Amino acid sequence: MNLRILPVDPHWLAAAERHQNDLTKPPGSLGRLETIANRCAAIFGSLTPPVDAARIVIFAADHGVAEEGVSAYPREVTAQMVLNFVNGGAGINALAQAGGIDLVIVDAGVATALPDVPGLIRRHIGDGTRNFTREPAMTEAEANEALEAGFAEAEAAVADGYNLLGCGEMGIANTTSAAAIAAALTGRSATAMTGRGTGVGDDCFARKISAIERALALHGPHLATPLDILQRLGGFEIAEMCGFFLGTGALRRPVVVDGFIATAAAALAVRMAPHAREYMFAAHRSAEPGHTTLLEIIGDAPLLDLGMRLGEGTGAALAMKLIQTAVAAFTGMATFSSAGVSNKNS
Amino acid sequence: MNLRILPVDPHWLAAAERHQNDLTKPPGSLGRLETIANRCAAIFGSLTPPVDAARIVIFAADHGVAEEGVSAYPREVTAQMVLNFVNGGAGINALAQAGGIDLVIVDAGVATALPDVPGLIRRHIGDGTRNFTREPAMTEAEANEALEAGFAEAEAAVADGYNLLGCGEMGIANTTSAAAIAAALTGRSATAMTGRGTGVGDDCFARKISAIERALALHGPHLATPLDILQRLGGFEIAEMCGFFLGTGALRRPVVVDGFIATAAAALAVRMAPHAREYMFAAHRSAEPGHTTLLEIIGDAPLLDLGMRLGEGTGAALAMKLIQTAVAAFTGMATFSSAGVSNKNS
Repeated sequence: MNLRILPVDPHWLAAAERHQNDLTKPPGSLGRLETIANRCAAIFGSLTPPVDAARIVIFAADHGVAEEGVSAYPREVTAQMVLNFVNGGAGINALAQAGGIDLVIVDAGVATALPDVPGLIRRHIGDGTRNFTREPAMTEAEANEALEAGFAEAEAAVADGYNLLGCGEMGIANTTSAAAIAAALTGRSATAMTGRGTGVGDDCFARKISAIERALALHGPHLATPLDILQRLGGFEIAEMCGFFLGTGALRRPVVVDGFIATAAAALAVRMAPHAREYMFAAHRSAEPGHTTLLEIIGDAPLLDLGMRLGEGTGAALAMKLIQTAVAAFTGMATFSSAGVSNKNS
Repeated sequence: MNLRILPVDPHWLAAAERHQNDLTKPPGSLGRLETIANRCAAIFGSLTPPVDAARIVIFAADHGVAEEGVSAYPREVTAQMVLNFVNGGAGINALAQAGGIDLVIVDAGVATALPDVPGLIRRHIGDGTRNFTREPAMTEAEANEALEAGFAEAEAAVADGYNLLGCGEMGIANTTSAAAIAAALTGRSATAMTGRGTGVGDDCFARKISAIERALALHGPHLATPLDILQRLGGFEIAEMCGFFLGTGALRRPVVVDGFIATAAAALAVRMAPHAREYMFAAHRSAEPGHTTLLEIIGDAPLLDLGMRLGEGTGAALAMKLIQTAVAAFTGMATFSSAGVSNKNS
């Protein structure tokens, strides 16, 4: 795993901005569609950045902290939803199909044994993490193995010809892990970082905050590096997503960061390799309260704010279409001179 | 023109909500994608609402008020951009193509003579409106003719098999007209409703506010009805868009309302026929300050907030893809029982 991530070239950003101002529209009038396209141009070093081939990788894993009663759904739903992804019945399947986006499903560490089914990639680090209210979620070796596995998925996507990448996740109890990571990364309280995830009731919500507070008390003295935080509070799918974001940076590909849990993984990647953020596009504002804090670390404002909180890469799927459309305007529009349109009065 | 617009059936809204809660996701976790799909189900009276065939109609016209020096661009740009639309070089062309959206271009009243070119529909009410700082922009007969023309475009779209509609506009100085309409509809001041349109400088901005203030002073005693406001302060493209929105309501088709100028037309339509709003989806939040006020009249929050201010239906094109994706999730996802996924702990 080569962690050398290069910054994007500011000269290409400037060249893209000049091109935008030649197109038959008032300067800046396409708003964020312009800055998206400019960033893609800088990432690829081209005024015709290729973003036509999009893939989302869904990483799934189970979490030991689920035994603290922090989710509204039973643990076996992780495996059931993996099969739902493989069979095409989940939200992300419908959204990816509507957007012409390729989907890959990865078992990063689902606790329930999964049948051998076509379309399921095994990058299985363990049968779920350990309960981080009592011990580290994973060993350092497991954390590194998961980072490598996610990085390898980014390499596989690029090798398969995909030029616009994204990832999503499934894992019962993983908003608890993401909130713990957010608190550890930012020093904010468990209460400030914790939301209702899939929609938990008051008792469950209180157990969730308590679990995170106990975990922070237990691990607090040992959370000096992002790898520490990942190992002690993370999940296998979060670690693989983190590796995936390191891979997209190292391979210089634009990558869409889905909601709260994916952003926790992306924030860890940025803390490990700061230039990784230059390849990231925040998809949407999650309804989870810790999301805004994590978005500050990746330094991008979300493209969409639709009250979504499903995960699975569903926000990424929508944002990818916006990115492709932004680049289509950038590469497809006429210039003032080519179209014979008068430019602004001086 | 049959102005009888029926309300959508609340029973279908309830049936759609029940179906959403059977799908393999936590209830409400797709956020606004759920409410969009539910509204489409209610509009069509079906749990498989057809929104696959999308068309945007661009209405173009010139404005007499342009002679007050209210725009950064010369008046001939309206005709030049119409030809740019026909030739496929404008922002909306790139966005519509990227989204698989059909595009129709209508001359609602362009002042410059346009060549006979394929793909340009003539619904030409006059060679631009009159300068509304001195006299009504159009006669009552012209306003009614334009409303009928826009209504006929909605009928044509439905006859051509389109089931998801939108409209956009082009017209140098038409943010001035839209801001005047917004002020007249809401009683807010010209200053509060006026923005920089295509990006005017300070002098031009001051002339714009002055023109609207003079128009409001001149016409104020005669702005009792939405038709009065349209006739005295509107534009031919705004009147045809207003007719289009009346048509989509009468024909019971979902229609996407683009930015500031389209929303001015939509707000007039809602004041003429209140149920029209039940078929409208606000596309995006325009950078124009009067837009928020107009959105309150149509009663929908915009789906996107990307700092766009181009018009042409560009925001509508993006929003249409979101609507199609929302319906794809609604109709394509598995249910808990069909997928063998455990539902929430009770």
